[in-house]
Amino acid sequence: MEFVTQALIERFDRLSKVKAADFVINESRIGFYLNGEKLLSVMSVPSDQDAHIAGFLLSEGVIENPSAIKSIRVSDDGLSVYIDANVDESARKNLFKEKTLTSGCCVGVTGNVEDKIAREFLAADYKVAIGVLLDAAQLFAQKTPLFEQTGCVHRAALVLESGETFSAEDIGRHNAIDKAIGRARLNGLDVSRSFLMTTGRLSMEMTMKCVMHRVPIVISKAAVTLQGIRSALEYGVTLGGFARNGRINFYAHSGRIIV
Amino acid sequence: MEFVTQALIERFDRLSKVKAADFVINESRIGFYLNGEKLLSVMSVPSDQDAHIAGFLLSEGVIENPSAIKSIRVSDDGLSVYIDANVDESARKNLFKEKTLTSGCCVGVTGNVEDKIAREFLAADYKVAIGVLLDAAQLFAQKTPLFEQTGCVHRAALVLESGETFSAEDIGRHNAIDKAIGRARLNGLDVSRSFLMTTGRLSMEMTMKCVMHRVPIVISKAAVTLQGIRSALEYGVTLGGFARNGRINFYAHSGRIIV
Repeated sequence: MEFVTQALIERFDRLSKVKAADFVINESRIGFYLNGEKLLSVMSVPSDQDAHIAGFLLSEGVIENPSAIKSIRVSDDGLSVYIDANVDESARKNLFKEKTLTSGCCVGVTGNVEDKIAREFLAADYKVAIGVLLDAAQLFAQKTPLFEQTGCVHRAALVLESGETFSAEDIGRHNAIDKAIGRARLNGLDVSRSFLMTTGRLSMEMTMKCVMHRVPIVISKAAVTLQGIRSALEYGVTLGGFARNGRINFYAHSGRIIV
Repeated sequence: MEFVTQALIERFDRLSKVKAADFVINESRIGFYLNGEKLLSVMSVPSDQDAHIAGFLLSEGVIENPSAIKSIRVSDDGLSVYIDANVDESARKNLFKEKTLTSGCCVGVTGNVEDKIAREFLAADYKVAIGVLLDAAQLFAQKTPLFEQTGCVHRAALVLESGETFSAEDIGRHNAIDKAIGRARLNGLDVSRSFLMTTGRLSMEMTMKCVMHRVPIVISKAAVTLQGIRSALEYGVTLGGFARNGRINFYAHSGRIIV
């Protein structure tokens, strides 16, 4: 399988060791270039690089909407991604203004969007039946081949009102979300009537990504954090956690969920 | 419990919803100040802040060793940490030179240490019996109260040759490692005869932390990545993954493990 490399291991137990072959995820350092200048590097699985860069820059407000993108090109080796776009220069400058190490990611993400929130507040009137979410969560709970082989990837899936679904996997939970939403937006689709599922914990960066993309509902198999809840309450995101075994816990704005 | 906040939730299943109380981790944005200047912020659980800042700056090579630290002070609200120390100015400048979004953390961490590696190569002759590791892994596998309540923390434990153990928990796997190793080093202990256990995946940043601290062995309950293996092979770190159920898989330098 792509992005997976065979590694020779020694498996030790208390009394013996045996040589064996195992599979590990093959992540790379991928360079993002914006309008001809190196923007940053991201440790990532080299798939969906076009969706990744688009999703990331849209979620940071550096690119206002997909129509501002002129071109995206991925180098033959997959390790460099070039995007040409009309950018919001102040958002671009702010990207590295506040240096924050987050629980999962880092620069930008939290610092950059706070100025924009007032106009980005999510007032979407999209509602979805709990049965739709639970069915989707059940599908989402199935392990993918990449996870089965490596035990080392997060996954995100954006489900539109039509049922059309955009899925992505990556070693980083932020990356998987950027890729899934980025793909839908590159396809010109309206994501304001959709919900996002993720395997990763929901901290503030995740709700901020939803606000910036105007995705009204996000649900995780995993836990949510207090800052995740606070930002979701404040900015209008429906936040669900521990979506497992036929149940979902909602921490904010459950009014969008129909029983 | 500290760092845990009660949240009111609505638990939906297919047919009903019930209000309930749940516990969520209460992470904060904590400011790190070095010699009177704001260095960065970190989303983190506000515990062990002194060990956290020390462990982070030592692992980045900004502070060469604990004796270079003059003082560490934590503000009364726990959200600001002030360290005064003799620093390596070039390492400090490099901290934000290469902007890398990693699978779990970000600036610094990977970019900063590469210049230092030649002199930091780990040639420690420390060896440890597999039984010691498996016993420690079994203890480590027990869930902590904080994890039981929130399902939302990573953990790290540094075990010295004497058996003395330094443990820490945080929402970030990097933070937990910084706190555990930082505490041991603040106590003036020699960590070159120790092993580190973590609940987080072992990517390159983790092996780099071990190299910089001269911790020769790192073992995770979770997976390792290809870049984790490559850096461990290259820089002399013994790397073990999937430490569960009486077994550990070794991916690099298993010569330090005695059966």
